[in-house]
Amino acid sequence: MNPRQRRAATAAVLAALVLAGCAPAVQNGATVSLAVVPAPASVAPGTGAPFRLTGDTAVAGDADASAALSLLITARTGLELKTSDDGSTDLRVESGGAPESYRIVADEASVTVVGADPAGLFYGVQTLGQLVQPDDDGWIVPAVEIEDAPRFAYRGVMLDVARHFHPVDTVKGLIDRAAGLKFNALHLHLTDDQGWRIHLDERPRLTELASATAVGGDPGGFYTKDDYREIVEYAASRHMIVVPELDMPSHTHAIGLAYPELVEEPVISAQVREDAELFDGDLPETGKPYDGMAVGFSSLRIHDEATYDFVADVFGELAAMTPGPYLHFGGDEALGTTDEDFALFVSRTSAIIADLGKTPVAWHEAGEASEIADSTVGQYWGYVQPTDGADEKARGFVRNGAQLIMSPADAIYLDMNYPTGPDLGLTWANGPTSVERAYDWDPGSVVSGIEEDDILGVEAPLWTETIRTAADIDTMVFPRIAAAAEAGWSPATGTSDLRTWESFRERVGALGPLWTSLGIGFHPSDEIPWVTE
Amino acid sequence: MNPRQRRAATAAVLAALVLAGCAPAVQNGATVSLAVVPAPASVAPGTGAPFRLTGDTAVAGDADASAALSLLITARTGLELKTSDDGSTDLRVESGGAPESYRIVADEASVTVVGADPAGLFYGVQTLGQLVQPDDDGWIVPAVEIEDAPRFAYRGVMLDVARHFHPVDTVKGLIDRAAGLKFNALHLHLTDDQGWRIHLDERPRLTELASATAVGGDPGGFYTKDDYREIVEYAASRHMIVVPELDMPSHTHAIGLAYPELVEEPVISAQVREDAELFDGDLPETGKPYDGMAVGFSSLRIHDEATYDFVADVFGELAAMTPGPYLHFGGDEALGTTDEDFALFVSRTSAIIADLGKTPVAWHEAGEASEIADSTVGQYWGYVQPTDGADEKARGFVRNGAQLIMSPADAIYLDMNYPTGPDLGLTWANGPTSVERAYDWDPGSVVSGIEEDDILGVEAPLWTETIRTAADIDTMVFPRIAAAAEAGWSPATGTSDLRTWESFRERVGALGPLWTSLGIGFHPSDEIPWVTE
Repeated sequence: MNPRQRRAATAAVLAALVLAGCAPAVQNGATVSLAVVPAPASVAPGTGAPFRLTGDTAVAGDADASAALSLLITARTGLELKTSDDGSTDLRVESGGAPESYRIVADEASVTVVGADPAGLFYGVQTLGQLVQPDDDGWIVPAVEIEDAPRFAYRGVMLDVARHFHPVDTVKGLIDRAAGLKFNALHLHLTDDQGWRIHLDERPRLTELASATAVGGDPGGFYTKDDYREIVEYAASRHMIVVPELDMPSHTHAIGLAYPELVEEPVISAQVREDAELFDGDLPETGKPYDGMAVGFSSLRIHDEATYDFVADVFGELAAMTPGPYLHFGGDEALGTTDEDFALFVSRTSAIIADLGKTPVAWHEAGEASEIADSTVGQYWGYVQPTDGADEKARGFVRNGAQLIMSPADAIYLDMNYPTGPDLGLTWANGPTSVERAYDWDPGSVVSGIEEDDILGVEAPLWTETIRTAADIDTMVFPRIAAAAEAGWSPATGTSDLRTWESFRERVGALGPLWTSLGIGFHPSDEIPWVTE
Repeated sequence: MNPRQRRAATAAVLAALVLAGCAPAVQNGATVSLAVVPAPASVAPGTGAPFRLTGDTAVAGDADASAALSLLITARTGLELKTSDDGSTDLRVESGGAPESYRIVADEASVTVVGADPAGLFYGVQTLGQLVQPDDDGWIVPAVEIEDAPRFAYRGVMLDVARHFHPVDTVKGLIDRAAGLKFNALHLHLTDDQGWRIHLDERPRLTELASATAVGGDPGGFYTKDDYREIVEYAASRHMIVVPELDMPSHTHAIGLAYPELVEEPVISAQVREDAELFDGDLPETGKPYDGMAVGFSSLRIHDEATYDFVADVFGELAAMTPGPYLHFGGDEALGTTDEDFALFVSRTSAIIADLGKTPVAWHEAGEASEIADSTVGQYWGYVQPTDGADEKARGFVRNGAQLIMSPADAIYLDMNYPTGPDLGLTWANGPTSVERAYDWDPGSVVSGIEEDDILGVEAPLWTETIRTAADIDTMVFPRIAAAAEAGWSPATGTSDLRTWESFRERVGALGPLWTSLGIGFHPSDEIPWVTE
């Protein structure tokens, strides 16, 4: 067939195709097919010439998609595409942006926020909210272009509801506050020596018998399954997951109130005695609620099968209640347990959680247990300058192929007392902790010998031995939580002139009016140049 | 302070801020703050005037994000934003596109594919692969703009590996083929009367004693846990989830080979006798592998607690192996079980799966069991024109607040014989089934009284009583799978001139050369005008 014949034949096919709604098109006098299966939602044929594939055609953009496209085109045409990122690209394949990323373009005429996904859009809105400011004539959004995406996938805040119980509305308030700073995980420390705070149908005696009290003789409390669901759903609406923790094998005195057969007698070490005297003088006693602040004296029975039946029951039920991927089993401060027994417990408990299809999380001590489930994420709570081999324990998780959450206690433990401020919080982690110290560290520089990819993210814990009310929480959390937000979200220290203490304190100061208008009772630290309008 | 004083003061602040790396900016002579916490990855201040918020400012776009932004701005400024979608919008908030969506822009100079997410990009690449075509001078991509997104979130293909076992490489081949048509779920029918095909450590006898044979005396087989993981990971790399099915309480003769105490004696009804004679004459016998094609004669013991220990064991282990949200427990053709017993089994089994944190899926018969777990998704396998109350059973899932997967047997059961074609497949579902019949139905019009939102998606099952090889699979699956792809992905019938049989057959015909170049041995149905180059 010569070209003229071909064109005539093509015209006949075209007529048939148009009738059939097959969206062919004439381009440069030739008919082209727009045959796609399944049919796209919208197809608009062009009128110009088609794009021509040759041996010089180059593809660039997303690596997986470039490779898939090259394979497909080579299979169909025999042509080998070139790979190019020098700007002379012909074929470009890209996704709409990294997860949770967004872009803001604001000028005199309009403001546009585009999120790569719903979470990215949510974060773009939070940023825009921070940009709104008054001038002499009213309210403005500065002309600006912002491209933004998180450094780490996991950005958490922890609330201890065991030492003091905090009601659902307080938890929701913390979710709102954290989400506004682009946190995406709420870690709930649900159990400790002082109380068990989550009702589980499989083990109802836990809340019946071990939830009524709290530190200092304060009243306790617990979440019903409906309460927990309400928290999970509220968090999800703010693009946060809930990471529930049932702390074991120590921090388990409360379990003994409900199931005495599962726990050992308290081990009253010199340290426990000293802690008890330091804080309030109470020593733990078998079968009685504990309302002091000592740690590490309790333990589940490591060599009793009933313990693992219990572990399977409570984490099994919790897994079904928790849509997020993580279940935290504690593993910290098992001071009365031998290394060998601790390793056995960690091995069996992490395996039970992994078998539930969840990713176990544990405090860094568990990283020295060689048989821990490979998927277990470690949460480092040592110091920014590691002591006592805490970094070596943390590296154990990385050697297994899993990642770390960075929570250095001397930097972002939100319960540490401020240098000048209210009489709230503790000081053991090199406290008092200034806002500057909370800011002046980088997650990539704490544990040596690991890569950026080995870090899942950052979490700021709030322990509540001294924290009793929502107002207490606001005071201790703000402004230091902003430092943790920046450690988790923003580029690494040194890669941007925004990532300095001087820039941070100015920017935090500028948020004062927004925080006030949102009802956040932040601590007016004298380290921050607070803006007042 | 008058404006001049204010400006002077501002200049001083500006100098301080610039030193602090706080990215302030001068816009129209005034200093503005660009204080964002946590610091964005990139901030480029504009030089023009800022955007001004007033009582006339309107916000449009994503509803949740608009609401969140309005709340924030009102909290900060007291201004109430208007809501606008008339194009005169000032503030626009939008996410990068629906999940799995993409956009292609091709002209003479370049081709760009932008996916809203990695899956969307993958699908855009598949579309682009289909658009590549020869002309007189070589290979082209037509000039075109395509906007595309799926109609339904779930688009599945099912492979029965119980009646005939199919090795991992065959499954991977099917994954590639289905993903190319924008399917995102592979349902594996892992167990039936003829064999149990997945090794589970909790119940190792299942594969030791009940996996060796298949229909017609063919050899059986099973997947190790590593095999299954390999399938799951390969599917994920093509943006597909795996939905594993352990069929119960009937279709369980093989379980009896391993655990005789769990099953009832076979119920040999007239129908079973007739089916056996029709196909091969074999009747099931207790304790012997079954290699015939009759159905509905077997049952687990409904009133024995050991049955539910078994259900908990096998689904518990499967849950931990399966990252996707769904576990399918069958529930079809329990012909020897009373309605009351069937309802009891469905209730307990669906609850066990829901308690594992997974979403149960069941064939539509289970929808008449009033106590089924509310989250259970129903899979409708009745006809396009429902008979025998199949649609009423399906509506049961919707009344519970869950959704349906549409798999009408007379349209998209891929194992139905072709009108003219190889001697493969069955005919019971009003077969032989033409490609036109496979195409000419709409998922929204099968079960009356439900809404579009009640449909999770579409799935095309391939039962394998007569399907023994990868070549058999290709022949039966292609081209009819393309009809299922279009039912699941494309806009509803009647909403686009592409969604007609005439358009579809032309477009499928144009894919012949691509399918051939990809090694797909499709059935060259005479209903399709196959293009040959």
